[in-house]
Amino acid sequence: MRMLYHLPLCPFSRKIRLIMAEKRLSFELMTETVWKRRPEFLAINPAGMVPVLVEETGLTIPDSYAICEYLEEAYPDTSLMGRTLAERVEVRRLTAWFDDKFSREVTHNLLYEKTFKRFFGNNNPNAQALREGYENIKTHLNYIAELTENRVWLAGNNLSMADFAAAAHLSALDYIGDVNWDKNPLVKDWYARIKSRPSFRSLLNDRVSGVIPPKYYADLDF
Amino acid sequence: MRMLYHLPLCPFSRKIRLIMAEKRLSFELMTETVWKRRPEFLAINPAGMVPVLVEETGLTIPDSYAICEYLEEAYPDTSLMGRTLAERVEVRRLTAWFDDKFSREVTHNLLYEKTFKRFFGNNNPNAQALREGYENIKTHLNYIAELTENRVWLAGNNLSMADFAAAAHLSALDYIGDVNWDKNPLVKDWYARIKSRPSFRSLLNDRVSGVIPPKYYADLDF
Repeated sequence: MRMLYHLPLCPFSRKIRLIMAEKRLSFELMTETVWKRRPEFLAINPAGMVPVLVEETGLTIPDSYAICEYLEEAYPDTSLMGRTLAERVEVRRLTAWFDDKFSREVTHNLLYEKTFKRFFGNNNPNAQALREGYENIKTHLNYIAELTENRVWLAGNNLSMADFAAAAHLSALDYIGDVNWDKNPLVKDWYARIKSRPSFRSLLNDRVSGVIPPKYYADLDF
Repeated sequence: MRMLYHLPLCPFSRKIRLIMAEKRLSFELMTETVWKRRPEFLAINPAGMVPVLVEETGLTIPDSYAICEYLEEAYPDTSLMGRTLAERVEVRRLTAWFDDKFSREVTHNLLYEKTFKRFFGNNNPNAQALREGYENIKTHLNYIAELTENRVWLAGNNLSMADFAAAAHLSALDYIGDVNWDKNPLVKDWYARIKSRPSFRSLLNDRVSGVIPPKYYADLDF
């Protein structure tokens, strides 16, 4: 059986879970507590990070970017990357936006500080990081709103990897109650559409010990 | 004429310059002082970062990952990504290794602290960051040595984007004198081979005001 090493609240793992579900690829999830630096795991990914996809053939694909491009090349029937060169540029530009810029400016400051940090031996969230995270998420939600005002999905008329990258980060932040949906109705409308897709169900069933999500986390009518 | 917005010491811009030169694509370089946040530049890349490639058709491609994938799709004759799915996984895994992990653990701690930081309004390099950078580069050089021990190029028998990603970061660090080549003969041998390629010449001619590279920086027999 195809296997994905992941962490439930890791946005990069969540993106891969969504994309594989959209492509109707069956897989098993294996939780990898990366901070323990398990030698068997480091042997398959020296970078020591999730997600890592292992195909039934044994082919091992570490890194969320490498996995996304691999899935698109190996399973092109349901394309999530756009058709023309220009469409593909926009999908990848926005995927990088969320996995690089949003991740650095928002996810790291909020999700990492509040949850993952303690596993790496640091206890208290840094107050300055939290302040920056809360400030930055406003700007980013405005940018998403701006995109959805003129487009059906974030990168254009078609649902793409860019939507799943964005939704993966936001869903993890939503789990810790850090997305103010009511102040961002356009973003909420886009997120409601993606949240109600069958591919999203597995994410909404995630529960992490010690962190209780807000009641509306799994609610499709939030 | 095709144009690349860049910064001379930006490793991500350097990688694109190398790849375009390998693909024999002519282009003009336009230095973009991103910290000035020029409105015309933000209009073409809201992320405000280099590199950004603008084709003669007007097609604008921001982000080094999006540019690399675009160049491979638009100009496939000289492929730098590998042929089989497994080869492409390895090329992309290592490209992400350098552009993500190496960048965070080494480049940011040394190059950003010593050069770029002051343009963003922070004056002094952080001593702890420098210490971590110097410690981390040792581990990373060992990893490169390990790869070259069993392979002609970093990702296998063929020169690939992974080599250019690694060489782009190392060349920028070499400009500020932070690579100890003599302690890493295997890495030096690999770097000497890539440094002597015609695609590398433009990088070796870069000079940045206020930062003088060591004498061996442009020397092919260093």
